[in-house]
Amino acid sequence: MTQRISRMCQEISPSATLQLNARVNELRAQGQDIISLGAGEPDFDTPLHIRKAAMDAISLGCTRYTAASGTVELRTAVADHLLKEKGLSYAPDEIVISTGAKQALMNALAAILNPGDEVLLPAPCWVSYPEMIAMAGGKAVWVHADEQEGFVPSIQKLRAAVTERTKALIINSPSNPTGAIWTREQLLQAGELALEKGLILISDEIYDQLTYDGLTALSPASLSREIANQAVVINGWSKSYAMTGWRLGYAAAPRDIAKAMSAYQSHFTGNPNAIAQAAGLCALKGDQSCVTQMAAAFGKRRDLMAALLQKMPLVSCFVPKGAFYIMLNIRNLIGRRYQGKEITGASSLSLLLLEYAQIAVVAGEPFGAPDYCRLSFAISEERLKESMARLEAFLYALDS
Amino acid sequence: MTQRISRMCQEISPSATLQLNARVNELRAQGQDIISLGAGEPDFDTPLHIRKAAMDAISLGCTRYTAASGTVELRTAVADHLLKEKGLSYAPDEIVISTGAKQALMNALAAILNPGDEVLLPAPCWVSYPEMIAMAGGKAVWVHADEQEGFVPSIQKLRAAVTERTKALIINSPSNPTGAIWTREQLLQAGELALEKGLILISDEIYDQLTYDGLTALSPASLSREIANQAVVINGWSKSYAMTGWRLGYAAAPRDIAKAMSAYQSHFTGNPNAIAQAAGLCALKGDQSCVTQMAAAFGKRRDLMAALLQKMPLVSCFVPKGAFYIMLNIRNLIGRRYQGKEITGASSLSLLLLEYAQIAVVAGEPFGAPDYCRLSFAISEERLKESMARLEAFLYALDS
Repeated sequence: MTQRISRMCQEISPSATLQLNARVNELRAQGQDIISLGAGEPDFDTPLHIRKAAMDAISLGCTRYTAASGTVELRTAVADHLLKEKGLSYAPDEIVISTGAKQALMNALAAILNPGDEVLLPAPCWVSYPEMIAMAGGKAVWVHADEQEGFVPSIQKLRAAVTERTKALIINSPSNPTGAIWTREQLLQAGELALEKGLILISDEIYDQLTYDGLTALSPASLSREIANQAVVINGWSKSYAMTGWRLGYAAAPRDIAKAMSAYQSHFTGNPNAIAQAAGLCALKGDQSCVTQMAAAFGKRRDLMAALLQKMPLVSCFVPKGAFYIMLNIRNLIGRRYQGKEITGASSLSLLLLEYAQIAVVAGEPFGAPDYCRLSFAISEERLKESMARLEAFLYALDS
Repeated sequence: MTQRISRMCQEISPSATLQLNARVNELRAQGQDIISLGAGEPDFDTPLHIRKAAMDAISLGCTRYTAASGTVELRTAVADHLLKEKGLSYAPDEIVISTGAKQALMNALAAILNPGDEVLLPAPCWVSYPEMIAMAGGKAVWVHADEQEGFVPSIQKLRAAVTERTKALIINSPSNPTGAIWTREQLLQAGELALEKGLILISDEIYDQLTYDGLTALSPASLSREIANQAVVINGWSKSYAMTGWRLGYAAAPRDIAKAMSAYQSHFTGNPNAIAQAAGLCALKGDQSCVTQMAAAFGKRRDLMAALLQKMPLVSCFVPKGAFYIMLNIRNLIGRRYQGKEITGASSLSLLLLEYAQIAVVAGEPFGAPDYCRLSFAISEERLKESMARLEAFLYALDS
């Protein structure tokens, strides 16, 4: 019998963060007090007024199919939001509401990629991008940028990676895992490259409300009408409004791409959950102070974690400008030993930290950052301090 | 510039039922009292105790990510349900909870199809199947069955359609649009074919709770352990519990396929809505009388609609054994005229009925049934009677 699982599914890598979480849960079940710095979601509850709106929607019987790409009310609210917050001009039928930003990304890739088409993927990058590109039949072309470059690849590097088959460039600003934010100049250069080569810019802006030091993360679609016509803006409610479990995201795109995404989604899942859509409408139309309060709390924790890491021996860190992760540079730990066990890279360090320091960090390899570990600060200040104390004690205990 | 929309998305047909709904809404906005027999969802509200459970989950802060394939509690409840109701034996890690049965179907197709693989598609069939197969890179091979065959293709027809590239067979019993239910003998023959040829049976059982005349819709996975090992069972909460807008479905499959589906879904959408999962858990564990009450109401409407149709001139109907649609045979109307306008087929009849009788029915062409229209009885008895009166008046007014 031939292999019955498709080649595509055989090649999907399990998510590194999910594997870590599974191991953390095992150890906790054994009674260990593990502090996880692996979280990819806010530790806040969804704000009360949003939850109330969802309960009202349930009471009112908002439990039937909606239009596959979301209710007109919600698509209109997203269009209004994009105009007000970013100066982007979209009609409601250029917005597709999805089951999380993940689906919005998959819709965008499916809408534009033919088998074998290439997608430029600035790295370090979120672990799901390369899998998504492969699932949509495309080929990820990694374009690496190091810490000295601020984790954003130069336009020269991007340009050098373009071939006849290049169809798109993924921009994730602020970035998971690095927290880097692309400057206006960097975005403009990418936009010009997109216009010149006919590339689509897939701009994943899911962390846009979580920026620090007074910075703003610009959308490439805001740079010019021409660039907007080459861009798909991806966003959602998960990170800004602490609504991860609701699975609500969206894409804003030129009409031809929006239409293709909507048709694809209509057969794939149909509409996103109707109650989540009601909650999302309340989130956009309601008081925005919850967003700024959560962002301020994350900013305070970023300062705290960065300050504590900067005092530690051997390691250094890239202070993120957005999102809620810090990339810890562990290059100088490679070759050192803890209780005789050698650190050979980020993965081996991650295992040692889990076993000997009871802290969980995500090794950088699957992000394309083998000399780094990703530390999330989406945990309470108290636990954050405790985790840093454990890390520091571990570092001081290393053999030289 | 090359065409920027992918070939796959260019070929997706917009849903015929959605197009009909859009036209109905336009006419209603003009003040016309259109009765739609196009509905693909129960007209009942989600039962109160299920809605209450969702509200409780929101209050308790059940708003974060869950495992991508659904909570262990819900997967366990599905496994218990399948054992109790159908004698099927699955472990919780052989269950994948999805954003509607649509996603469960797409996951199953993606898990097994390589580009160009063929899927046998008994027809008449639901309009989304051929699109889904194409979206997953496969090729739909229609196997037609006519009304005299009870709308279930013979094993000879199925066998004749198998080639070296055949990977799967979709069984939808009870069927949308015909309401046909496969007998044990028919399922056994299909199961034997699957074992002989190494095919996967994708069994879409979404209408299984809506059966009439004391009939039960068997799952092919219940026939033997060997057949179960070749089967993917698809189901969900939409039709049984009137939960369409919640978007909650599942697949039960052998571990290798379940694992592939889960990995695929983890990158595509992540977990289905966490609150819907809590609601779905309550639905499975709670009082089942809501299910039998709704099924009884549908049964009564089926009897009513069938009786009214059988009194009408020129048309006949296939009395469905399950689901909530009646296929109206309109062959004898072809060539006749209404106010001088010729009926050339189901689509032209559908347009005339909308314009002159203010009733919306779905033309059979996209289901692979060009001599039929699909009439949904998921509407109130009063509106059902009124719609039948309008249809009858239309038929009597036809020129011979």
